[in-house]
Amino acid sequence: MAFEYRPMRSVIYVDCVREEYRHRLQHWLYSVHVPDSISKFAPYCNKYTFYNALPVPPEGERFGTRRMQMTEHYWMVNEMTPEMSVNVFTERMPPIVLRWQGMIPDVDLTPEQSANMDGDTHRASGGDNGMPPFVFAHVPINWQYDYKGKGRTLDDGPNYRWQFVLRWPCEKTGEKWFEEVFVPYFQSRPEVNRFVSSRIYHDVVGCQFHRLVEMWFDGPDEWYAAAVEGTRDMAQPDWAKEAPKEAPQAQFPFLKPNHYIVGMFLSDMAASDNLTQYRGYLQMR
Amino acid sequence: MAFEYRPMRSVIYVDCVREEYRHRLQHWLYSVHVPDSISKFAPYCNKYTFYNALPVPPEGERFGTRRMQMTEHYWMVNEMTPEMSVNVFTERMPPIVLRWQGMIPDVDLTPEQSANMDGDTHRASGGDNGMPPFVFAHVPINWQYDYKGKGRTLDDGPNYRWQFVLRWPCEKTGEKWFEEVFVPYFQSRPEVNRFVSSRIYHDVVGCQFHRLVEMWFDGPDEWYAAAVEGTRDMAQPDWAKEAPKEAPQAQFPFLKPNHYIVGMFLSDMAASDNLTQYRGYLQMR
Amino acid sequence: MAFEYRPMRSVIYVDCVREEYRHRLQHWLYSVHVPDSISKFAPYCNKYTFYNALPVPPEGERFGTRRMQMTEHYWMVNEMTPEMSVNVFTERMPPIVLRWQGMIPDVDLTPEQSANMDGDTHRASGGDNGMPPFVFAHVPINWQYDYKGKGRTLDDGPNYRWQFVLRWPCEKTGEKWFEEVFVPYFQSRPEVNRFVSSRIYHDVVGCQFHRLVEMWFDGPDEWYAAAVEGTRDMAQPDWAKEAPKEAPQAQFPFLKPNHYIVGMFLSDMAASDNLTQYRGYLQMR
Amino acid sequence: MAFEYRPMRSVIYVDCVREEYRHRLQHWLYSVHVPDSISKFAPYCNKYTFYNALPVPPEGERFGTRRMQMTEHYWMVNEMTPEMSVNVFTERMPPIVLRWQGMIPDVDLTPEQSANMDGDTHRASGGDNGMPPFVFAHVPINWQYDYKGKGRTLDDGPNYRWQFVLRWPCEKTGEKWFEEVFVPYFQSRPEVNRFVSSRIYHDVVGCQFHRLVEMWFDGPDEWYAAAVEGTRDMAQPDWAKEAPKEAPQAQFPFLKPNHYIVGMFLSDMAASDNLTQYRGYLQMR
Amino acid sequence: MAFEYRPMRSVIYVDCVREEYRHRLQHWLYSVHVPDSISKFAPYCNKYTFYNALPVPPEGERFGTRRMQMTEHYWMVNEMTPEMSVNVFTERMPPIVLRWQGMIPDVDLTPEQSANMDGDTHRASGGDNGMPPFVFAHVPINWQYDYKGKGRTLDDGPNYRWQFVLRWPCEKTGEKWFEEVFVPYFQSRPEVNRFVSSRIYHDVVGCQFHRLVEMWFDGPDEWYAAAVEGTRDMAQPDWAKEAPKEAPQAQFPFLKPNHYIVGMFLSDMAASDNLTQYRGYLQMR
Amino acid sequence: MAFEYRPMRSVIYVDCVREEYRHRLQHWLYSVHVPDSISKFAPYCNKYTFYNALPVPPEGERFGTRRMQMTEHYWMVNEMTPEMSVNVFTERMPPIVLRWQGMIPDVDLTPEQSANMDGDTHRASGGDNGMPPFVFAHVPINWQYDYKGKGRTLDDGPNYRWQFVLRWPCEKTGEKWFEEVFVPYFQSRPEVNRFVSSRIYHDVVGCQFHRLVEMWFDGPDEWYAAAVEGTRDMAQPDWAKEAPKEAPQAQFPFLKPNHYIVGMFLSDMAASDNLTQYRGYLQMR
Repeated sequence: MAFEYRPMRSVIYVDCVREEYRHRLQHWLYSVHVPDSISKFAPYCNKYTFYNALPVPPEGERFGTRRMQMTEHYWMVNEMTPEMSVNVFTERMPPIVLRWQGMIPDVDLTPEQSANMDGDTHRASGGDNGMPPFVFAHVPINWQYDYKGKGRTLDDGPNYRWQFVLRWPCEKTGEKWFEEVFVPYFQSRPEVNRFVSSRIYHDVVGCQFHRLVEMWFDGPDEWYAAAVEGTRDMAQPDWAKEAPKEAPQAQFPFLKPNHYIVGMFLSDMAASDNLTQYRGYLQMR
Repeated sequence: MAFEYRPMRSVIYVDCVREEYRHRLQHWLYSVHVPDSISKFAPYCNKYTFYNALPVPPEGERFGTRRMQMTEHYWMVNEMTPEMSVNVFTERMPPIVLRWQGMIPDVDLTPEQSANMDGDTHRASGGDNGMPPFVFAHVPINWQYDYKGKGRTLDDGPNYRWQFVLRWPCEKTGEKWFEEVFVPYFQSRPEVNRFVSSRIYHDVVGCQFHRLVEMWFDGPDEWYAAAVEGTRDMAQPDWAKEAPKEAPQAQFPFLKPNHYIVGMFLSDMAASDNLTQYRGYLQMR
Repeated sequence: MAFEYRPMRSVIYVDCVREEYRHRLQHWLYSVHVPDSISKFAPYCNKYTFYNALPVPPEGERFGTRRMQMTEHYWMVNEMTPEMSVNVFTERMPPIVLRWQGMIPDVDLTPEQSANMDGDTHRASGGDNGMPPFVFAHVPINWQYDYKGKGRTLDDGPNYRWQFVLRWPCEKTGEKWFEEVFVPYFQSRPEVNRFVSSRIYHDVVGCQFHRLVEMWFDGPDEWYAAAVEGTRDMAQPDWAKEAPKEAPQAQFPFLKPNHYIVGMFLSDMAASDNLTQYRGYLQMR
Repeated sequence: MAFEYRPMRSVIYVDCVREEYRHRLQHWLYSVHVPDSISKFAPYCNKYTFYNALPVPPEGERFGTRRMQMTEHYWMVNEMTPEMSVNVFTERMPPIVLRWQGMIPDVDLTPEQSANMDGDTHRASGGDNGMPPFVFAHVPINWQYDYKGKGRTLDDGPNYRWQFVLRWPCEKTGEKWFEEVFVPYFQSRPEVNRFVSSRIYHDVVGCQFHRLVEMWFDGPDEWYAAAVEGTRDMAQPDWAKEAPKEAPQAQFPFLKPNHYIVGMFLSDMAASDNLTQYRGYLQMR
Repeated sequence: MAFEYRPMRSVIYVDCVREEYRHRLQHWLYSVHVPDSISKFAPYCNKYTFYNALPVPPEGERFGTRRMQMTEHYWMVNEMTPEMSVNVFTERMPPIVLRWQGMIPDVDLTPEQSANMDGDTHRASGGDNGMPPFVFAHVPINWQYDYKGKGRTLDDGPNYRWQFVLRWPCEKTGEKWFEEVFVPYFQSRPEVNRFVSSRIYHDVVGCQFHRLVEMWFDGPDEWYAAAVEGTRDMAQPDWAKEAPKEAPQAQFPFLKPNHYIVGMFLSDMAASDNLTQYRGYLQMR
Repeated sequence: MAFEYRPMRSVIYVDCVREEYRHRLQHWLYSVHVPDSISKFAPYCNKYTFYNALPVPPEGERFGTRRMQMTEHYWMVNEMTPEMSVNVFTERMPPIVLRWQGMIPDVDLTPEQSANMDGDTHRASGGDNGMPPFVFAHVPINWQYDYKGKGRTLDDGPNYRWQFVLRWPCEKTGEKWFEEVFVPYFQSRPEVNRFVSSRIYHDVVGCQFHRLVEMWFDGPDEWYAAAVEGTRDMAQPDWAKEAPKEAPQAQFPFLKPNHYIVGMFLSDMAASDNLTQYRGYLQMR
């Protein structure tokens, strides 16, 4: 039985489809999912952190912006190998949580649909049923590409972070356009303080996205200037014209939001570094 | 020199007037204000907690809903007495933080205005200048009035908490109306799962608000049904008619939002229990 | 509204009537009761600790020895005053927990009996129904009487601690006998390394016990020599003869076990110092 | 110098041969051994946890049930390689601790026997001298075989866990019988809620046991029904008849208790997750 | 039995008379004294902190500068009252620790002298025997007198803190000189960034010192300029001339060092906030 | 992209060239550098610890003794590989910190020199400019050579630890002399209680030192007897005579202090185990 040392970082973008569900989803995440997760993976996960989604800026929906939180892990091993497949207890993942997140339709579940799901089924939800996919993207522990702003420190000011994953209808033409159009454009924008990216591993959980990208702005106004106003005249790429289903927008980012581009706006700070800060689900009195 | 044991809870409602400021305000709160505060008051403060504001529900502005966080302390002594007045270091409270919170106008400050403020000046800001007041309300450590829902446990489900302070144009008529109209109305609403209240101490920081109120709903839809839809026909009270400046709304809650009624929507859970969970300002990588 | 500074220590002796219940009771204590309790009283409780019961030594049943854990609190205020009576949420205390502890009969509950109980009802259970009383004894934060062994340090060796509460059929004659017979006897025993005691407050939760006593031995053999073998010839006191219901044993300790004498054997060390060590209910994998 | 990444879990079953020793052994474990251990292996051990032994159920002795605690580690490297052999300080492991655990006879030690032992000698004690072996079994970080109950979550109820190691007189016949008789029998028992197993690495510390097994029951009554009552008619296997020294029992589990079968009854919860919860040896006051 | 709420801060200046003892004293403080202390007073002590002494600056000996650490407590009650006098265990305080600290002569102890001391005897050591006194000074939780530099924040730069206690041969003349000469002098020095003081309670442990003083400088050069160079021409006060035993120096500070003036140079930061940071005595490997 | 599991320990010796800088350097280390570092490397660093330098003993300067702290890390990967080179934020490392540490001259910096440095530049400072080198030495996680004192435990007494790195003018002759002269000499000294060593990796950060050595004494007097007095007659080795620039001392240790021998005196205990104990920069009040 062999365990390969394979340090990876993963990101999950959790959505909340109605405000009616936000406090319920939060309650499940902190009272049920965090202790289940720590119990399960603490021996091989070095960091397990939640970052709260900042509110969606104007036109942010077009960019597949999710509304609950980004969940980040740093792994030492690939948890999806056969060697890791037997778990003495199973995480509690009722389907209703997927409904709150928009992975399954927002309608009442039949009793059969309400049985606990195992984590793999849970994380494989969405995508095929017309609903947005569950995004679980694994990348190297450090960023791979440094496009702009190397050297920025915390003293340079708090950051408005735009982090997202991209899936190209065609990887080859998409990547070419990314390098030749996307990267130079954002490098040239004065509002972009920092810009890094990594390619996503496909062999871990079968994630279909190709790239993870992160850019830092001073705030949402600066993001809007660069990502919305500044891109109004950007030419629709050929790969987008050729894939109207995957890339139905005539404007940047062209891709189908929440399916081919999914992301979040984040601040510098974690809401909870669960392995070091979690102390049980304690309520307000 | 005498120190009186006077256990109190206090609440502060922090607003964020533009999304452009949210991550900056968060950065100041966690990287500067939390360590300053812990350093200062850990010896006599038993609990120091932040609760994130949930998004403002429809028509929530009319209820003086603030958008950043509720800050809660449990004190053992009144920090405002002469015995407590000398502090060897001063908290860092630049006026720009008040601008982000809406306590001073959202315009650039002159250099003179930008000097550090001491905490008392900071907390005394707003209110007199036409801007909303800084709300810092001290109450007994346990709730005083239990109007509905005694016995509710966490197993009864996650709660959508509406917490707010009220200031009456006239305390006597306001309190009478609260008891005779307000309380019975919300007791009768099926959407209200829990309803408690306390009277606010005026002798601590000179807080002008009279009551702290908290009600629990299943979610924002239920709140809207009870607090907005259900009150459309509620008669405008005489005290409101007689005080059009303090109570300019013809509809419930009648009072001038953000000045005479100020509050927030909260979940059950603290974002950070600072005395036990704070581990420095650590950034995302 | 006045809150008196009244520092107190309290002890609770939790029994477990069948081994079939031990892991269930533990699960409820750590997964449900600890977070409920911390959420409720952290602002005015300075220490909240569990100590595991050591196994009952031979003839320990005659001394009212309980089998689960001792729960200790250090309070700053008396939680039972009217000022403290309103709680926005209620602790989850299903009656089955009382069944596991032996406060109600070990038979199936009707649905009506299974509704959640509030904490006061819970803690008032037992005693009147022929079942053993729930023991919740408040004492001063430091011991009051130092009978033997002052100066013992941790370097003198680990201790086998016998801690128990006594209820006299008649306080006056009981106390007299305690001072004239009980204390001198145990002072004279070479096996007793340490011996302290305090009187129990009756005005907090109406506890009917009079004294809390703690003695330290090297181990259960030494306890047996002193408390069982050495007392075989101890004369049955008059107060015991006069109260056969409360003191039905002809031998020391004479009192009715689990009703008039209740205690536990403990080691030096807390199983969990909940306010500083609790990190959620994490399971073995 | 090469360090191989070899993640492993290990279990140790600590016995306590007399109640006279329980508090002493606990004191040594928590005041001496935990800080020594954390100091030594924190850089390459990801989890270091104690689980308290539940009381031995009726006939549990026949199953080699130990009475103090299970000690669990998750390692990143094999600590027994030459690269790891030099330690600047040595753990404090006086032989008396082995006496309390039953690894050496329960008689007074000569001064020569009382010198500190190094950890390897300590952990190699027992077994050859007629005393029970020190059990230190390394297994893969996840279970290898999932025989029954996949999908069980914490919401399915607290578990009474039976965990043990098996050593076959003959590995081949023993394993065959395990697969053909043992596994089907317990799979068929309604009392068994969960059943997993792993094979033990022999190349780490030379552990002679072959299998680690864990089964979950509702409580000791259910364990007794399945493991004692239900096995009364189980045929004594040939391998047992052929090895009367190693397998002297005519009844299940056939093997010599505490030598060829050693285990413990555990609850879901750790008594102490040392790397995250240890805060020094603090005593009751 | 009455417990008065009496919040107090106390400071202890621990010396180390030879470098040969520094690591031994540190070892005792952290491995023995911290856990003993936390065990004893956690229920009524809100903060228990160590601050490392900075190296003694030139001529610092003349100011009674101690060389190990300042120990600070924040208490809720006076631990010295009769109600607090019984402790079930005693702190381990061997006399050799006093030798390392210079409270008893630096010569070998007889066996009789080597028995454990109780804390009160320990803390009452020194002073009467010609050796320097153990300094344990209780003051109000906030400073009483603010002489200079109000408003300084951490952003104004790290501080070189001079903290010391003063004992006047005659309180009346000493205090008069302090107000009329000492305070104005240091207020006028540009090197003094901050200057506060409090009067010491005499009714807690019988401390003979009158004042606690703290001044902040940029560093030891600035301290030297103000406290040594700048005071060369300061007139010897009459009270000093009249008390040559207590005030034998012709130069400022006039008082007998380590007996009538005792202090330490400190940085802004605690070496260990024991109640929140202590995790056992863990060694380097 | 491949990440090799390469567990390593590293040591850094931080100097403080003037007392005027000690509290400033401490402030930068704890308020700026610790949070930057934790944020950056927590996912692949298992231990990150500071040990305070004990005061320099007599003649300690000749041994290259540094005066601030030893910083220790335990890594899982080599942070210097290309895979690890992109960091989304940069640590704050102003050149003035190098001035305080003696890596650049102690003169005022031009504005150009004052820009933030990245960590690699920072750690590459010193050495070439005539100033002492920044020492950052990586070694295996366990010691390689055990020369004396195996088996020593904490109960054998607190230790005065001398830890240092050696750089030979010629590795071959230096190592030969180390084995034939250095090791036997210190093995023979009764003052040496413990003596271990490791060879330093050259392929991580290009460290030019060859060996890390640690020896334990009872205190500085014993160190002086062994390292200074006892070596007065040790013959100057040929390699030293042949390299007067690198080995200009006629006496042991012969090597140029702070350039070819650099070290520190340490106690057993960490000043701060940053990953587990850091709770933000909290100031004294």
